[in-house]
Amino acid sequence: MESKHIGGHYLQSYDTELEEVFNHMLAMGELVEAQLRNALSAFITSDLACARDVADNDRRVNTAEVLIDERCTEILARRQPTAGDLRLVVAVIKTITDLERIGDLAESIARMVIRNADSERPRRQLLRELETMGQRVANMLHEALDAFARSDVDKALEIVRQDVDIDNDYEALTRQNMTYMMEDPRSISFMLDISQVARALERAGDHACNLSEYLIYLVKGRDVRHIDIDQVAAIVHDQRDE
Amino acid sequence: MESKHIGGHYLQSYDTELEEVFNHMLAMGELVEAQLRNALSAFITSDLACARDVADNDRRVNTAEVLIDERCTEILARRQPTAGDLRLVVAVIKTITDLERIGDLAESIARMVIRNADSERPRRQLLRELETMGQRVANMLHEALDAFARSDVDKALEIVRQDVDIDNDYEALTRQNMTYMMEDPRSISFMLDISQVARALERAGDHACNLSEYLIYLVKGRDVRHIDIDQVAAIVHDQRDE
Repeated sequence: MESKHIGGHYLQSYDTELEEVFNHMLAMGELVEAQLRNALSAFITSDLACARDVADNDRRVNTAEVLIDERCTEILARRQPTAGDLRLVVAVIKTITDLERIGDLAESIARMVIRNADSERPRRQLLRELETMGQRVANMLHEALDAFARSDVDKALEIVRQDVDIDNDYEALTRQNMTYMMEDPRSISFMLDISQVARALERAGDHACNLSEYLIYLVKGRDVRHIDIDQVAAIVHDQRDE
Repeated sequence: MESKHIGGHYLQSYDTELEEVFNHMLAMGELVEAQLRNALSAFITSDLACARDVADNDRRVNTAEVLIDERCTEILARRQPTAGDLRLVVAVIKTITDLERIGDLAESIARMVIRNADSERPRRQLLRELETMGQRVANMLHEALDAFARSDVDKALEIVRQDVDIDNDYEALTRQNMTYMMEDPRSISFMLDISQVARALERAGDHACNLSEYLIYLVKGRDVRHIDIDQVAAIVHDQRDE
């Protein structure tokens, strides 16, 4: 069977429809990454116009999800793919669900900025840490999409490992946040907003991690969710040596 | 084509494998509902043993997800279902993802109870409101599963409508929570835990709502995500009159 290089070597048969759906997924991923970066920047700089753009653009994310989903179901029905082709369609169906949820998280951050447009926003060290955490998560998403485009399972494994760092960022930020609140109860409302953004970022990191797991499933044919990171590494490495 | 009654009328061909995978999904749903109810109860009553059970049982939820997913991919590969059968498989793949995430939320509540086993937990009116909200969400999940078992799209529509109430519960609880924190900064740590549980419940409600949307897709063949509730109602009602 002829091998087709959609950013890699895992497709068993040439298929423009599969290539199309895969590329649409990557484009949706780029849009979602931009939404996340813009939402974060709107929160950090209290940029109302940018927040409104993010809120408006969520419709584009949702439309992309529905369209790609439809195309996948059509491919399943009409082309009845098997093996690597089938895994590609299943991986795309799962990936777009996670992307749509990152889109929702970006939208919820943007709506918070819009809702609080009139409140005074204290400048704090904490915002810088939130920004750093947000950039890490956005980069993680970028790399997860890039790994997909190149079927780079080593990179995917690295991203799964990174998720622990994001969780630690989140824990540290939450603890520090609580200290600020206790010291200055007038800051509680703003600090709760920061907590909510941090929580959204932490979840976006989880979704980026899910993307990487789907890629490993796609390339290696093994479901690596819910298993130990060392077992994931063994699957990624051992099978490569076959 | 012979019609098969798996809790309804939407399957176009008799298929024990489809029936099996559908029943496994319902069983996974029951497990997740129990996890959510137990996690909430463990938090309300500070029941450490119950929290540990929930944390341990999350493995069962994860295993169920992976197994059902595998069975679905096998069915897609070997039986190449079309029309209603294909929609059933796609709906099951999506549903178990949402169920697994409700399971994760229950686990995160349980782990919070375990982590805070030694802290003193003030008794507050707010806990009663959290309990009420939690019961509403658990009932919503129960009804979403029941609607699936009976292919009851009217009930599914009702659940999609209920999600707004849960969001309102969450907003009200968050506002009240903030007032308590400002009045008594020593309560901040406990109040943040309550906020986090409330947030988890609100998300579990979203997932129950997703389940209902998948059921409408399964029965009506129309993707009703991201559209206005009145349009969803029109799809549920108009098509029934055809």
